[in-house]
Amino acid sequence: MIDIDAANRAAVERMTASRPRLVGLETAREAMSWLGSRHRLLHAGPPTDWERASGPLQGAVIGAALFEGWADDEEEAAELAAGGGIELAPCHDHAAVGPMAGVVSPSMAVYVVEDEVDGRRTFSTLNEGYGKVLRYGAYAPEVLERLRWMNGELAELLADALAAAVADEEPLDLRALAAEALHMGDEGHNRNKAGSLLFTRWLVPRVIEAAGSAGAAARAAAFLGDNALSVLNPLMAACKAMADAAHGVEGSTVVSAMARNGTDFGIRVSGLGDRWFTAPAAVPEGLFFPGFSAADANPDIGDSTITETAGIGAFAMAAAPAIVTFVGGRPEDAIAATMEMYEITVGEHPHFTIPALGFRGTPVGIDVRKVVELGITPRVNTGIAHREAGVGQVGAGLVRPPAEIFEEALLAWADRYLDDEDEAI
Amino acid sequence: MIDIDAANRAAVERMTASRPRLVGLETAREAMSWLGSRHRLLHAGPPTDWERASGPLQGAVIGAALFEGWADDEEEAAELAAGGGIELAPCHDHAAVGPMAGVVSPSMAVYVVEDEVDGRRTFSTLNEGYGKVLRYGAYAPEVLERLRWMNGELAELLADALAAAVADEEPLDLRALAAEALHMGDEGHNRNKAGSLLFTRWLVPRVIEAAGSAGAAARAAAFLGDNALSVLNPLMAACKAMADAAHGVEGSTVVSAMARNGTDFGIRVSGLGDRWFTAPAAVPEGLFFPGFSAADANPDIGDSTITETAGIGAFAMAAAPAIVTFVGGRPEDAIAATMEMYEITVGEHPHFTIPALGFRGTPVGIDVRKVVELGITPRVNTGIAHREAGVGQVGAGLVRPPAEIFEEALLAWADRYLDDEDEAI
Repeated sequence: MIDIDAANRAAVERMTASRPRLVGLETAREAMSWLGSRHRLLHAGPPTDWERASGPLQGAVIGAALFEGWADDEEEAAELAAGGGIELAPCHDHAAVGPMAGVVSPSMAVYVVEDEVDGRRTFSTLNEGYGKVLRYGAYAPEVLERLRWMNGELAELLADALAAAVADEEPLDLRALAAEALHMGDEGHNRNKAGSLLFTRWLVPRVIEAAGSAGAAARAAAFLGDNALSVLNPLMAACKAMADAAHGVEGSTVVSAMARNGTDFGIRVSGLGDRWFTAPAAVPEGLFFPGFSAADANPDIGDSTITETAGIGAFAMAAAPAIVTFVGGRPEDAIAATMEMYEITVGEHPHFTIPALGFRGTPVGIDVRKVVELGITPRVNTGIAHREAGVGQVGAGLVRPPAEIFEEALLAWADRYLDDEDEAI
Repeated sequence: MIDIDAANRAAVERMTASRPRLVGLETAREAMSWLGSRHRLLHAGPPTDWERASGPLQGAVIGAALFEGWADDEEEAAELAAGGGIELAPCHDHAAVGPMAGVVSPSMAVYVVEDEVDGRRTFSTLNEGYGKVLRYGAYAPEVLERLRWMNGELAELLADALAAAVADEEPLDLRALAAEALHMGDEGHNRNKAGSLLFTRWLVPRVIEAAGSAGAAARAAAFLGDNALSVLNPLMAACKAMADAAHGVEGSTVVSAMARNGTDFGIRVSGLGDRWFTAPAAVPEGLFFPGFSAADANPDIGDSTITETAGIGAFAMAAAPAIVTFVGGRPEDAIAATMEMYEITVGEHPHFTIPALGFRGTPVGIDVRKVVELGITPRVNTGIAHREAGVGQVGAGLVRPPAEIFEEALLAWADRYLDDEDEAI
């Protein structure tokens, strides 16, 4: 008999022991060899292709093709992609994670995060900020111009600043940063105001030292400081490192990835290898920007559910009562959200604690068995993309994965681990 | 008959309508003409003199005398002060406020805060950070060296950065900053982590532009960013502007200042002119740094109670559950602290809101009548100074003013406003 509880405890111990640190910045093609061949892109969520891709993912593919110079205009880029001229693969298959469309192209810069425990490296691009941005499927000239500056001047400064920090043996401890941010009203997914300020505060003195000119340093400091999501991408890479540390524990029913590509919501389970369990993604409920409504919303999209997978995001809502102004609801709902997630998780995080709950650890390690038995699916906080390519963000809200993917995963677990004579789990 | 309730509502309306903005940095002697003559210092709290001054205030006077070059060593400075060679006055009498000892000397730089509503200007020095610092009565060579750098290189950068912001018509809105910080786990008195990061984020790009060298800019960025109290002093000046806006309303029983000099706790009341009502200050209860205990603690000291006077600090404890790790208590005590303060205040702040209480406004405008009637004195969060000159901070905790000063104020109000035939209030 497999001791599922012991396997799950082991998985969660690995997840919470993981200590990811920010150790550098490289181009994506340097960091991930698969991107070294031309016309390859990574995207958020489980595998998909151009035909099945949602509007925002198609928009981001178009934008990335323009950014890389693979096409001269939108039509040419779309034709290239539709004709099979652009190969797509999930970020998750290459140790990366990306918010929303999550498109990573070869010449984009990626943060390099390394787990102090096992040396595992994970990657994420630079966050673009708000408004018209590639990750929401926008590809207007201003989007591409910002990407060029970010992946040019800014990336050079960040690479030098991070290299200097590593040379000083002071790589940024992203787990400690997230823990502090949870005490400052962040939940680490939709609300990263405090974390982004902590990140900026840490980076900027090093950026100044690295900069050749005051203008470049001031632009970098303002861009990082004004973007309340600056830290989201490296924090997602940190959560990916934590979640991957929990992956591959024989017999474990702990979820080690949750991700959406705008069409499907997929999960992976620690004891079930690299298989994705997928079903159509739901449309988030929440607050819409002026001029937009639920009719404009694309189904749930992005790898940022890696935060919930690792015990923050919606699981840490009780730490972030002010988030309700952004995603809807009342402050007491934030407490209730976290309390509900204790029902379906294996443990309480030893490092991520919630002051308002008497410094109780966040619920961590989603147990597929509990999700199915209790009929409670994980909660997710998310941004909402317009369903058409090229538009961008239209709101923010709350969503849950489809229940059937947990049921399928549990059946797959039974197929793999139960002999005919074993009792049902 | 005086309509006390109407007077108090008017006072609180003025207090909460005040919109203080950071408009510059000057030397104290430029900002406050009284300091223009030699051998004059400002201090926190109600009036006092060298003989009655507590250890930390005496230490800060010694340190300021050394900083100004009025004496060559500790003994000479103490002799100068003891012989009447240094004239002391309260910060509050010169539109200034200072944390802990609150000593302001002529050549120190002060932030200039201006109320957009009435043009009132208030002042505060730069915050020194933690450890051995003048405001806790330390005057070791490292303390003076830091003061020289702060009031030299740093002050020049800040003056240029703030002047540029004003030239761009972008002075920092300190009320908005405090409101945002309350949504990020600060209470604005002992916990100013988020506010200081918001302050640093706003300042640093401008500091970089103002700096002649990357080294100077990086030093400033690191000093501001690493000090979780960077914003305390300008925020106190902002609270002083708000509280002073509420001062002088005929018939009002609203407290318009609370301040301590390490010996006495004093209050001023809106309808009772510039008179201080004072009594011996209590010793705060709280958590002590390793190696220190309550026996080392000086009685309550500092002008930082201006934060509670203006409706933040201990009055906004419910916004800052994580503060209990610093001042003692449990997170539920933080909620209870704010709830209790609603009992003795006139209104709820329209701009300072508490997410965990459903975005209810903070309790604002302490009503002397309610304090006396209910026997509930205002709560105060505070740092704790060593009682001897030269040592520094030994902890942080909670304290309340002596009840009798509210009773005295109420009697004084009756003396001034009630005819013999009027009923007792």
